[in-house]
Amino acid sequence: MHTRLYKESLSLHTDFYQITMAYAYWKSGKAEQEAIFHLYFRKHPFQGGFTITCGLEDVIDYLQHFSFTDADLHYLATLTGNDGKPLFEEAFLNFLKNSCFSCDLMAVPEGSVVFPNEPLLRIQGPLWQCQILETPLLNIMNFQTLIATKAARIRLAAKEDPVLEFGLRRAQGIDGGFSASRAAYIGGCDGTSNVLAGKLLGIPVKGTHAHSWVMSFDSEAEAFQAYAQAMPNNCILLVDTYDTIEGVKKAIQVGQALRARGYELAGIRLDSGDLAYLSIEARKLLDDAGFHNTKIVASNDLDEHIVESLKQQGARIDIWGIGTKLVTAFDQPALGGVYKIAALKDTQTGKWEYKIKLSEQSVKVSIPGKLQVKRFYDASRGLYVGDMIYDELNPPTGNSFTIVDPQDPIRRKRLSNEAFESKDLLIPIFEKGKLIYDPPTLKSIRHHRQSELDKLHSSIKRFVNPHLYPAGLEKSLYHLREDLIEQLRPH
Amino acid sequence: MHTRLYKESLSLHTDFYQITMAYAYWKSGKAEQEAIFHLYFRKHPFQGGFTITCGLEDVIDYLQHFSFTDADLHYLATLTGNDGKPLFEEAFLNFLKNSCFSCDLMAVPEGSVVFPNEPLLRIQGPLWQCQILETPLLNIMNFQTLIATKAARIRLAAKEDPVLEFGLRRAQGIDGGFSASRAAYIGGCDGTSNVLAGKLLGIPVKGTHAHSWVMSFDSEAEAFQAYAQAMPNNCILLVDTYDTIEGVKKAIQVGQALRARGYELAGIRLDSGDLAYLSIEARKLLDDAGFHNTKIVASNDLDEHIVESLKQQGARIDIWGIGTKLVTAFDQPALGGVYKIAALKDTQTGKWEYKIKLSEQSVKVSIPGKLQVKRFYDASRGLYVGDMIYDELNPPTGNSFTIVDPQDPIRRKRLSNEAFESKDLLIPIFEKGKLIYDPPTLKSIRHHRQSELDKLHSSIKRFVNPHLYPAGLEKSLYHLREDLIEQLRPH
Repeated sequence: MHTRLYKESLSLHTDFYQITMAYAYWKSGKAEQEAIFHLYFRKHPFQGGFTITCGLEDVIDYLQHFSFTDADLHYLATLTGNDGKPLFEEAFLNFLKNSCFSCDLMAVPEGSVVFPNEPLLRIQGPLWQCQILETPLLNIMNFQTLIATKAARIRLAAKEDPVLEFGLRRAQGIDGGFSASRAAYIGGCDGTSNVLAGKLLGIPVKGTHAHSWVMSFDSEAEAFQAYAQAMPNNCILLVDTYDTIEGVKKAIQVGQALRARGYELAGIRLDSGDLAYLSIEARKLLDDAGFHNTKIVASNDLDEHIVESLKQQGARIDIWGIGTKLVTAFDQPALGGVYKIAALKDTQTGKWEYKIKLSEQSVKVSIPGKLQVKRFYDASRGLYVGDMIYDELNPPTGNSFTIVDPQDPIRRKRLSNEAFESKDLLIPIFEKGKLIYDPPTLKSIRHHRQSELDKLHSSIKRFVNPHLYPAGLEKSLYHLREDLIEQLRPH
Repeated sequence: MHTRLYKESLSLHTDFYQITMAYAYWKSGKAEQEAIFHLYFRKHPFQGGFTITCGLEDVIDYLQHFSFTDADLHYLATLTGNDGKPLFEEAFLNFLKNSCFSCDLMAVPEGSVVFPNEPLLRIQGPLWQCQILETPLLNIMNFQTLIATKAARIRLAAKEDPVLEFGLRRAQGIDGGFSASRAAYIGGCDGTSNVLAGKLLGIPVKGTHAHSWVMSFDSEAEAFQAYAQAMPNNCILLVDTYDTIEGVKKAIQVGQALRARGYELAGIRLDSGDLAYLSIEARKLLDDAGFHNTKIVASNDLDEHIVESLKQQGARIDIWGIGTKLVTAFDQPALGGVYKIAALKDTQTGKWEYKIKLSEQSVKVSIPGKLQVKRFYDASRGLYVGDMIYDELNPPTGNSFTIVDPQDPIRRKRLSNEAFESKDLLIPIFEKGKLIYDPPTLKSIRHHRQSELDKLHSSIKRFVNPHLYPAGLEKSLYHLREDLIEQLRPH
């Protein structure tokens, strides 16, 4: 969601405990202590083998507008504790009032493929700021990353066919629709039905008419004729209001009349029934009547699995309209992204202290350090071969490295600078609060996503039991983490 | 989402085909023809037995701000068809520019229990306006109704315990969080972590600290002490950063120090591990130390089923923090609400024509007429006993009625004005575009939801195989619909 859509300050678009913690840091004299936090996820969504990072542009927009208005502070001043007294001292509210975003932000560019435990964002700066930003950064990144990944999967299933995002009516709120249109376009959709996304983001908008158009006339034939009359250069007719096959026949008659006027019937749309059977029958009728270029659009609760299945059944569908299952990520409507402190600078010594969170669930143990990700690329095969998460405070030396899967330390891999090209994924976005990054256009993010997926072996992109891409901790980081776990466990 | 949050016009927050249809209606001379549309759903979410309608206040806000800005119209003017020529004539754009919302709107008040096929909204006015509003009305109502219903289920599971909505970080975008906080409060939550929802809607905000607070100190004990020092009157300590039971013991020590200062330890929070076991152990430790009033808050992927199960296991949890599963309605993240034309006024005769949509799936066949819902109430038992969907164009006479389930015509029930009280559910909101309704406060909507659920038999509120509440078509409406289906089927 672009904050330019909002009149109100969004600085209170956060969890209340971020404010109480900011206050307690301030009271404890720790507010300005320098910290490093990472935003990452632990598991790919949809039981998949890859994730597409998305949301950075909106994160940038949010951070550029981060400041507390008088109305925000007046509201906070009204809040009281269980003794009826104010929770926050006035001096703290003044501290907030005079603050603005002053952190360093590193990020993996939008549209990149990413893997569990890899920081999508790394933020470094005053502890209270890093803390208070947890919720908005997660809110933006979790959702857009989820939807871009879902769209990329649908794009893989549809192969070269156009895919249109049609989900607004079932989306989770206004920017549950708007942000989804953006992320879906990055993930591989070719257009959207969402006109606001067309206007504000330049995404191509698509659509023609609904059942109510047909129902508002005395007959389907009359409705089709009137539509072709009004919009001959954008004529896709929805044929299933009463009976699909009869509808196709009537659309063909209208197509013939259109031809006589110098236009082509652009398409027909199927929205119910057995899409495999009906598309094959409709294609025959269209072809027999000489309408080889008239496209068949299909919609009705589609997702990547149904698209794949319809293609395997030989469905003759040219354009896929995907709604609810895409914009809500229906089969997994939340990415479990987290945001964890990883290091804190000692104010006396100026040295970084590593930070780690234990858990009864080992997958929930966090990763300490100032993390960066090095990705290795086999140019001869055109494939990514592995990612090394390493600690910039203690970077590995030499040209050959071992990575270890933190969930399964038996899984290790050697990666060498001699055999492969490599690059660091996190790049600078803000420096001390100043934007030093020029965000790419939506189109170029979309291209980047395609080029990224082209560099993944097909087995990683499979929907069922995908191959596990090697992404692990650099060996000395792995050992550092094990040592910290050992130290913190109660003995 | 309140449109006062938005700078931009939201009149293009709609599907593109609504605009192409509006244009085609206008070209066909039908734009101003008077129509009736209903917004309804076909199936309760979550395999439940009831639904809580929600979203009307935001619908009102949207309709009051409905108008096309110059920027909207400039954008529409740039759109072209497959021949490269503009899709819309300038005269149409001028028509849009000079228009404002002028329909009648009837609605079931927010927080009411509703059932399949019952209109939550009924809109009557110029065809083009009714049409173009389909998407925003569905977008708002589908999501908020879904979340209010999910929250009401969690409220039922938690019985009298406070329930807090903690979902913002995993919500679907900014108002995927904001609207969810509103709907969750209506549905029965007692507070939210979302500070913006606190500021703008007056919902109580709750929360204290996260793991990162604990990790930013050298030890958990030091972290707890510092928090109690900073915020003695709102002190709930998160005890599972390293080891839950050890964490509880340290919290008790801090609680003792707090007491010495005249404060009480408000609570501890569990966020991982076996919540049944840990809450029982934590309660023992707290009670043994004399902290009988210190509450135990639990969070970690909870929903109504886990809350119910934890209670059955004797978990000693006082306050429930519910996040992802609530704000995304994780197990069914979209309500399949639809919006269908049901009647159109003949411009020559001034008579209403009934409209119906057929489908290969019988559940998708729409209901014609100008619909109203009469709900019957057995005052002696304090229970709702049945809902009759009837046609105001042809209302039933007499005091005794038969309702028929359109999906299963064998299911019928007689309802009589003599045995029961009754009321019509849809009430006037807008008249010819003028707001004639004074929306209740959020708190009174929340009370209304509770009083509504109190009037449903407990078997209807059961999670597994709930009893089917009798809600059907008045018999003559049922027969009208059957006749129309018969007429429209191809012979």
